[in-house]
Amino acid sequence: MRIFIPGLDGFLGWALVQHLTARGHEVAGADAFFRRKWVEEMGSTSAIPVASIEERLSSFKKRFGKPLQFWDGDLCDYGLVEKIFKEFQPEAIVHLGECPSAPYSMMDVHHTVFVQNNNITNTTNMLYAMRDICPTAHMVKLGTMGEYGTPPLDIPEGFFEVEFRGRRATVQFPRQAGSWYHWSKVHGSNNIMFACRIWNLRATDIMQGVVFGTRIDAMGDDPVMATRLDFDQAFGTAVNRFCCQAVIGHPLTPYGKGHQRRGFLPLRDSMQCLTLALENPAREGEYRVFNQFEEVYDVTELALKVQKVGRSLGLDVEINNLENPRNELEVHEYRADHQHLFDLGYKPTHDVEAELVTMISDLMKHRDRIRASQDSLIPDVRWSGRREKVRFIGQQPPAASAENASQLAARGAGD
Amino acid sequence: MRIFIPGLDGFLGWALVQHLTARGHEVAGADAFFRRKWVEEMGSTSAIPVASIEERLSSFKKRFGKPLQFWDGDLCDYGLVEKIFKEFQPEAIVHLGECPSAPYSMMDVHHTVFVQNNNITNTTNMLYAMRDICPTAHMVKLGTMGEYGTPPLDIPEGFFEVEFRGRRATVQFPRQAGSWYHWSKVHGSNNIMFACRIWNLRATDIMQGVVFGTRIDAMGDDPVMATRLDFDQAFGTAVNRFCCQAVIGHPLTPYGKGHQRRGFLPLRDSMQCLTLALENPAREGEYRVFNQFEEVYDVTELALKVQKVGRSLGLDVEINNLENPRNELEVHEYRADHQHLFDLGYKPTHDVEAELVTMISDLMKHRDRIRASQDSLIPDVRWSGRREKVRFIGQQPPAASAENASQLAARGAGD
Repeated sequence: MRIFIPGLDGFLGWALVQHLTARGHEVAGADAFFRRKWVEEMGSTSAIPVASIEERLSSFKKRFGKPLQFWDGDLCDYGLVEKIFKEFQPEAIVHLGECPSAPYSMMDVHHTVFVQNNNITNTTNMLYAMRDICPTAHMVKLGTMGEYGTPPLDIPEGFFEVEFRGRRATVQFPRQAGSWYHWSKVHGSNNIMFACRIWNLRATDIMQGVVFGTRIDAMGDDPVMATRLDFDQAFGTAVNRFCCQAVIGHPLTPYGKGHQRRGFLPLRDSMQCLTLALENPAREGEYRVFNQFEEVYDVTELALKVQKVGRSLGLDVEINNLENPRNELEVHEYRADHQHLFDLGYKPTHDVEAELVTMISDLMKHRDRIRASQDSLIPDVRWSGRREKVRFIGQQPPAASAENASQLAARGAGD
Repeated sequence: MRIFIPGLDGFLGWALVQHLTARGHEVAGADAFFRRKWVEEMGSTSAIPVASIEERLSSFKKRFGKPLQFWDGDLCDYGLVEKIFKEFQPEAIVHLGECPSAPYSMMDVHHTVFVQNNNITNTTNMLYAMRDICPTAHMVKLGTMGEYGTPPLDIPEGFFEVEFRGRRATVQFPRQAGSWYHWSKVHGSNNIMFACRIWNLRATDIMQGVVFGTRIDAMGDDPVMATRLDFDQAFGTAVNRFCCQAVIGHPLTPYGKGHQRRGFLPLRDSMQCLTLALENPAREGEYRVFNQFEEVYDVTELALKVQKVGRSLGLDVEINNLENPRNELEVHEYRADHQHLFDLGYKPTHDVEAELVTMISDLMKHRDRIRASQDSLIPDVRWSGRREKVRFIGQQPPAASAENASQLAARGAGD
């Protein structure tokens, strides 16, 4: 299948292009290298060294025996999107080309406007190019479980059946995103749903959980084939950041009470799931939503796992929570469906601890890089708008049982 | 109350500034005159002559005995928003400064991206300026009933209580907008709801029906105080367009079967309702939604009313439907709540026919202007993306009874 990947140079993109090529697909990509600049803007760097795009393309050719078609440019430019779609005629697009950071979008008005406009514009451009150039192509769009927020209801996959005043209908499940970035994803989801309706396009909207991991099998051992791994306050996600903290002897830092529950999945599962969506495309005119995660964990549970694995590898790992810079529930229920991918054959990597051993071992080689930017681990972007580093508040009591969590949530504790 | 009106120069803005000033409020506004340019871009003009802003400001001063503070500029520029908010310190904002046209947003990728980015950016800018400069100000944002689309459920005011898997919660009613423009309003609604949640701002989101009318009492008889009235395919809405057609002997042109049901309201009711929202503001942190319309009508019902009134004024008025350029249900139910404004004291102008007499009489003075741009009455912007004038298909059979409409809708007829 001819698959186009916007955001090829990113954490998921550089892994996915290898995974899909190894499976025999013909893959091409584009990137404007914004991610590299954004992380630099946050005063940080990828823990794992990122080679230049020239080196990446050259190693790719060596490893897979064929060149990787690549466009250097910004997909907010419709002319470029049109040119790429005409030349490559994609049968599928995996849209990884959006700005993916909540804190980055919360920095100030200019970052908010940039993130929302950027994410809406490049997605809209691709929908138009699909309509006019490859109307049967399938868009797989990377969204986030964060589009749903943490509602006091079970979270279905995109839609649910409700009764209202005696009538029943299947409607979109309400979104309650928690940052301007997360809302940009909701806006994009709505736009894609609409394009499928009026133009008969096909799309799979992936509500992905938090991804962690440093490698997939297709990468082999060439360090140029490794993907980036960020740990700064804006682009580092929970488990990735914890592992980086563990290897430099920095305390692991859940935010607030640390009992936020989220769906998580290893990088290799993300690759597997995106591939399942691609190889089992939506029908013409269909807009479908997949919740993509392996299992739901409490953030502190994961910190404890990282601590345990870190200690088994001889590291001195403490946990010290930080004031929560975000405006979010810290104690809440979280019951989310994720059946669609299982129905297509998803086989989860259940052994999170084995994955953590690999990650921490990989990251131990890059201690100096992480130490050099360790200041970027502590957030100063607060949801209130104030820019000020948050303080350590000490390890918090263990998670309440599920029933307690539910009672606490009902009383509004942790709000 | 100090009230700031972005979009002061528009159809609603120029009326509202007069209505609120006559009620004793201190009003100021801004405009970048995009509406004038957009209508020109559609090859059209306002049926009612629009004076220059200098003339408008000068007549305003004469009529109300005080100058109107006005900023000429684009509120997508945060620097300008900041400057205005610091100087004027608004206690309320009535946000009429968005691009309001579905067909304009459907023209091509560039118009889609412009409309969505423009509408999101200026709204976001004002939310930030509220947070940082006047955090207790109340934003009244003009949205549209079109955010809801035409769902197979009753339409509540923004939120509804649902049961899902044994649990009940009050959640956002799903939006099913029908154009990129309508989605831009949904995106804006979501952004405002989020800002109220994290920054404790107060907002009223007005889901307004289709407004028709040429005057309000505050305008008096100075033609410079009259507000614009558009009839082109993009900025002319149903009743306004029908009245313009009636006065030049052009057939009235419902789209498709012509049984789209919508909420409508006269211009004077729109002014009354916005004033009620302003004078009874949302609480701090509250995001509330008002459905703002007087009554629900079938588009053909309104065409028949215009025909009847036109004939009573000696005009030769025929009805000749056009192929529908849009992708929408033409036969459907429409049951929408609109109680919040009644609770605040809204007294509807029930006599639609009297309003039509005024409108048609006003417009008869401007026959030549309408004739000169009558080509812009016939749509060529199709939801499919094709640009081609739609054809006349003849007057369609009368509306089915409510039960028939419901059965037709259930069978998917008219889709």
